[in-house]
Amino acid sequence: MSDVLDQLAKVLEQRRTAEADASYVASLHKAGLDKILKKVGEESAETIIAAKACEAGGAKSDLVYETADLWFHSLVMLSHLGLSHDDVLQELERRFGLSGLEEKASRGQ
Amino acid sequence: MSDVLDQLAKVLEQRRTAEADASYVASLHKAGLDKILKKVGEESAETIIAAKACEAGGAKSDLVYETADLWFHSLVMLSHLGLSHDDVLQELERRFGLSGLEEKASRGQ
Amino acid sequence: MSDVLDQLAKVLEQRRTAEADASYVASLHKAGLDKILKKVGEESAETIIAAKACEAGGAKSDLVYETADLWFHSLVMLSHLGLSHDDVLQELERRFGLSGLEEKASRGQ
Amino acid sequence: MSDVLDQLAKVLEQRRTAEADASYVASLHKAGLDKILKKVGEESAETIIAAKACEAGGAKSDLVYETADLWFHSLVMLSHLGLSHDDVLQELERRFGLSGLEEKASRGQ
Repeated sequence: MSDVLDQLAKVLEQRRTAEADASYVASLHKAGLDKILKKVGEESAETIIAAKACEAGGAKSDLVYETADLWFHSLVMLSHLGLSHDDVLQELERRFGLSGLEEKASRGQ
Repeated sequence: MSDVLDQLAKVLEQRRTAEADASYVASLHKAGLDKILKKVGEESAETIIAAKACEAGGAKSDLVYETADLWFHSLVMLSHLGLSHDDVLQELERRFGLSGLEEKASRGQ
Repeated sequence: MSDVLDQLAKVLEQRRTAEADASYVASLHKAGLDKILKKVGEESAETIIAAKACEAGGAKSDLVYETADLWFHSLVMLSHLGLSHDDVLQELERRFGLSGLEEKASRGQ
Repeated sequence: MSDVLDQLAKVLEQRRTAEADASYVASLHKAGLDKILKKVGEESAETIIAAKACEAGGAKSDLVYETADLWFHSLVMLSHLGLSHDDVLQELERRFGLSGLEEKASRGQ
């Protein structure tokens, strides 16, 4: 499972500078922060709707799909503002006392 | 960076069955899906607010903190419905043609 | 200012049964509750974004426009589930001890 | 039904300047725009959750209650930024070709 977010971040960074009409990621960055945040809000609502449908017996795959959309757009948001998933994972790690990042951080990341 | 979500998922699963008054995660599961989804919506709004503040020169750490809250509560939501971050990361991997999970999946995960 | 919501509710009800391709309202009802709720979530996010822009010196008209979108889609939601703005206004009236509706209610509304 | 929002706006304006610990409205204004917007986002999520519960056979009163919360906090938001429900209703009126406000506007409102 490891490094999927690392790989994804690289792909997202590459696509950031692609021609907007050739890449959805580039088109988001070009449209600007408000457009990206609108998508975060939209996908959050769709995640909630899919979770309620899932609870009522609907497909789990829909919830997975919408959560992936939510995480994806939040990654684009982080990238747009000069941040990355690493910053968020380090915060989660710190908060829950996990150890994976500490060694990496001590090596001067 | 790798495996932070794996470690976090284990911690979240352990805390799921803790006494509710001893663990925020257990209290969320006990309160039920609607409470968890309310938090997802709330943290999404706080993420958007923090991103706009960040754009206007505010602290990046606030945005990192709110995004961590959003991801954390979406992880609790997935867990509550019998899903995990693996399902979401596999969907992202499939969508972007990444390779990390395919080997793992072929080993019968 | 009075009765704008009353008039709007009538228009929305008329358009509900229009041909979907002839009316946005009819198309929302035909698409179903999830589509309507997705719009509620989307417009809520856009309202928050516009309010932050307004605070930073942006146009007030954008916030008015987005709030109108939010209220409009919440009216369609109420209508879709057999409710109306009257139900919501009565709740607000009850909560704040206002008097306008009580006479109407006593007349058997 | 008419004028409920007018009356409510007056009450909200009166409470705006009350002692914060004596009034929820005053406490929201004192806490600032971010706190108000957080509530808008939270109530939007709760409205969506209640609508899905309503669709699945749950109580309509919950949806009315949550929508009232959403409208109430959006009214506080408008007030905080020097706007009112009149601005939003005029936008809805203009958009849907309703007539109630035009006379009022022509009288110099």
